[in-house]
Amino acid sequence: MPTSTTLEELAYLIGGDLQGDGKITISGVFPIEYAGHGHLTWLTSANHEKRLHESEASAVITTAKLDYGNKAAIICKHPDQGLATVLKHFEPSRCHPDTGIDTRASVEEHVSLGENIAIGAGAVIQKGVKIGNNSIIHANCFVGQDSTLGDNCILWPNVVILERCQLGNRVIVHSNTTIGADGFGYNSVAGKFQKIPHIGSVRIEDDVEIGAGSCIDRAQCHETVIGQGTKIDNLVQVAHNVQIGANCCLCSQVGIAGSTHLGDNVMLGGKVGVKDNISIGSRVKVFAYSAVAGNIPDDSTCLGIPAESQASSFERMKAIRQLPSILRKVRDLFQRVIHLENELHRPQQRNGKR
Amino acid sequence: MPTSTTLEELAYLIGGDLQGDGKITISGVFPIEYAGHGHLTWLTSANHEKRLHESEASAVITTAKLDYGNKAAIICKHPDQGLATVLKHFEPSRCHPDTGIDTRASVEEHVSLGENIAIGAGAVIQKGVKIGNNSIIHANCFVGQDSTLGDNCILWPNVVILERCQLGNRVIVHSNTTIGADGFGYNSVAGKFQKIPHIGSVRIEDDVEIGAGSCIDRAQCHETVIGQGTKIDNLVQVAHNVQIGANCCLCSQVGIAGSTHLGDNVMLGGKVGVKDNISIGSRVKVFAYSAVAGNIPDDSTCLGIPAESQASSFERMKAIRQLPSILRKVRDLFQRVIHLENELHRPQQRNGKR
Amino acid sequence: MPTSTTLEELAYLIGGDLQGDGKITISGVFPIEYAGHGHLTWLTSANHEKRLHESEASAVITTAKLDYGNKAAIICKHPDQGLATVLKHFEPSRCHPDTGIDTRASVEEHVSLGENIAIGAGAVIQKGVKIGNNSIIHANCFVGQDSTLGDNCILWPNVVILERCQLGNRVIVHSNTTIGADGFGYNSVAGKFQKIPHIGSVRIEDDVEIGAGSCIDRAQCHETVIGQGTKIDNLVQVAHNVQIGANCCLCSQVGIAGSTHLGDNVMLGGKVGVKDNISIGSRVKVFAYSAVAGNIPDDSTCLGIPAESQASSFERMKAIRQLPSILRKVRDLFQRVIHLENELHRPQQRNGKR
Repeated sequence: MPTSTTLEELAYLIGGDLQGDGKITISGVFPIEYAGHGHLTWLTSANHEKRLHESEASAVITTAKLDYGNKAAIICKHPDQGLATVLKHFEPSRCHPDTGIDTRASVEEHVSLGENIAIGAGAVIQKGVKIGNNSIIHANCFVGQDSTLGDNCILWPNVVILERCQLGNRVIVHSNTTIGADGFGYNSVAGKFQKIPHIGSVRIEDDVEIGAGSCIDRAQCHETVIGQGTKIDNLVQVAHNVQIGANCCLCSQVGIAGSTHLGDNVMLGGKVGVKDNISIGSRVKVFAYSAVAGNIPDDSTCLGIPAESQASSFERMKAIRQLPSILRKVRDLFQRVIHLENELHRPQQRNGKR
Repeated sequence: MPTSTTLEELAYLIGGDLQGDGKITISGVFPIEYAGHGHLTWLTSANHEKRLHESEASAVITTAKLDYGNKAAIICKHPDQGLATVLKHFEPSRCHPDTGIDTRASVEEHVSLGENIAIGAGAVIQKGVKIGNNSIIHANCFVGQDSTLGDNCILWPNVVILERCQLGNRVIVHSNTTIGADGFGYNSVAGKFQKIPHIGSVRIEDDVEIGAGSCIDRAQCHETVIGQGTKIDNLVQVAHNVQIGANCCLCSQVGIAGSTHLGDNVMLGGKVGVKDNISIGSRVKVFAYSAVAGNIPDDSTCLGIPAESQASSFERMKAIRQLPSILRKVRDLFQRVIHLENELHRPQQRNGKR
Repeated sequence: MPTSTTLEELAYLIGGDLQGDGKITISGVFPIEYAGHGHLTWLTSANHEKRLHESEASAVITTAKLDYGNKAAIICKHPDQGLATVLKHFEPSRCHPDTGIDTRASVEEHVSLGENIAIGAGAVIQKGVKIGNNSIIHANCFVGQDSTLGDNCILWPNVVILERCQLGNRVIVHSNTTIGADGFGYNSVAGKFQKIPHIGSVRIEDDVEIGAGSCIDRAQCHETVIGQGTKIDNLVQVAHNVQIGANCCLCSQVGIAGSTHLGDNVMLGGKVGVKDNISIGSRVKVFAYSAVAGNIPDDSTCLGIPAESQASSFERMKAIRQLPSILRKVRDLFQRVIHLENELHRPQQRNGKR
């Protein structure tokens, strides 16, 4: 981590337009409410303009459209991407093990290891494993026999990859995640569960990242697949034989039951549950805390328990919110109808009044 | 894993009737959509007959009632069980550690180890632990003091069993699961939480399987119990003092709060939550994404948040689906009643018309 | 664990009033339904008086207001606290590693270790780490570079603390929990996700306890905070930049999305989900299986999906429960209105009747 950089150097790195004094020294990057003297912050929404003006930040990354007052600024089209560049610049060194094989690691025979790899203490690399160049296996990880990792992968501490799993290039797996455990499959025979062997595997394509404490089960036969560029958060369950397309985003605590297929660019909010043996189309978005119980066509946005289209869900939610007033209205109508009936069925009285 | 077998050998193993050429060589078993030449697949539902006919599979396991066209077939009463037999036949060797104690394992004194056991690198077996015959403890597992495992158990890598837990025979625990951590119990004293010691234990009976990343907490006092033959999926929470009967099935991401009792043969769908200190009867089924907030009698099927009987839940869901149309109907009635009132209360005008 | 103690000694420890024979020997403490001869149990509610009378327990901890029959008793104002004292008394020794550094642990250079610490086999303590006095690091834990632990901390087996995290004094972290993994943050650039570096850290204040299998992600920049005395159960997700106040209680399988703030004394029931970038006030209570989708003011109690105040939720739930009967009522009204309309609009006939 560089201890300080001038603002103009950062503007150059980002490829943004510098406004104000480029010679000021930036020692770090912080959210608006925590940024102080010498810090860079960011402004991506008019909602936070006021907070920026009150902030002691020395400079801001933002767009031309927002009011950044008299602060020094780096103006760019995509401040989020500019911020990522700056974060990368200020990133301290990560806690990776040294290049080479720690003497306390267990590397079995018939293993193929690429160049410049690092294997931490207590890691176990079983026979038949192949690991590409520049990959990092942290302490106390397990890579089971005949599994393969591509180039530039990172397994953080205590990750478990069981046998015959295939990970592509630049795959990142966070701590305490398990890949390739047996799927949850039993036959019920005479009232008891009989385990179904899971002889399939897990294939994880390039550029996938999987959070901490998640589980990707091996297929009963053939393979469970996580498509290229898909990102999976913490504590997510992906059951046996699930097939996930490219560039999907599964937020924390999502659960996908067995043999379900997801297309590309699917976005599942936190805690979404998805039934087994269904198909979710490409570019589908499911709001957090929803339960998907049936197939969903491409390009749908849905939510609810069970999940349905945004339009019908909102109509229903609105109707439910109106329920107490409907109840009052129905009671009112009931009284008025009785009243009308009484009036109509006492014709003598009415006639008498005339 | 055998590289190939004849179809008649597989029919013999399954105990099924051979249809067609039994001499063909089967090199693997695959789902219909992935099965090719030389592969065996399975057909258990008329829904997939068309897919089978389009498949290049060389043979199929199925029942006499389904149309398997002109493919070679193994006919049996329970194709699911036949499939399990075939999967077992084709199962590659698992990534178990070699029999014996790895030199990098830590086995303390006063430990009782059965015959033919395997303990992987980095595993820690504390004093007073007893492990039965043929049990396998993978790398980097922890078995705390005075815990016991029966015969033929498997602890996959990075499983943690804390002290004084008892596991029966043929218990399987998948990676990154924790058994016997302290329950979540505190007294609130002057606005602060004071930890309640958890001096109880966990007892897991024979033939239980527990998925990856799950947690079974120890009892405050006495014991948390998982009954014989019960199967628990990944990322499941079983709190302190919970008692689960025999042959239950808890799907992924289920959570059961403290001191709740489940009978036998209970089936909880994915993400089901169960309140503390309640009783769920035997043979109860709870649909996925439901929240059980009260006692449930034997043989019930229920769902919803909060969970209720299937009948009343379906009635309510149907009514909710009708809500928008009810709303329109009430508005219509409202207008018609006003109209009626107006007609009735303008008698002069009506009389005048006559 | 003492094998036995007299009841009067326990009464003295608790500071309660002894009723009956204080000389009887107590060999253990058990729940009412499991307590037998020589055992102490507890009674905190009139609901269980009958069970106590049927129990074979030799003595009971209770309050003066409850009917404990003719059993020997320790009477105190807060039986729950009395029970905790007795549990502490009977607590067997925990399975902690011996004081010192296990020869199979990896402790890097430039580490500052307090007095009387214990580091188990396979643990990895990276450079720059500071650990206070009396702290215990169990087997196969990982403490990343420049992280700090205060005094009297316990990391149970297989805990992973990544780099630059700060844990206060008396912090307890249970097995397979991950602290300081990268948050789930990406920019979408040309249809692909680009990882945002997470250069922040995690700060965990004094007296926090975190359950097994949970995840506390590091901040994108600055820090994720868990406030003093807060207790977190198993399988809980705390995303990047979340700020949790003091003395909160997060039950199992809770998930809190990024940058959300919780005040002090917040209580979240099991499986509660909380949206990103919102604020939850102090002393807020959220019932289990609720989804918080917006800010919540101090002192609120709420529930539902999405969560709302207890009053409006109960009104709505009541209305939903009445839906089928509303439906019937609306149908009835509809028929009666048609009838009224018919009567009114057939004036000839009515007149003819007169």
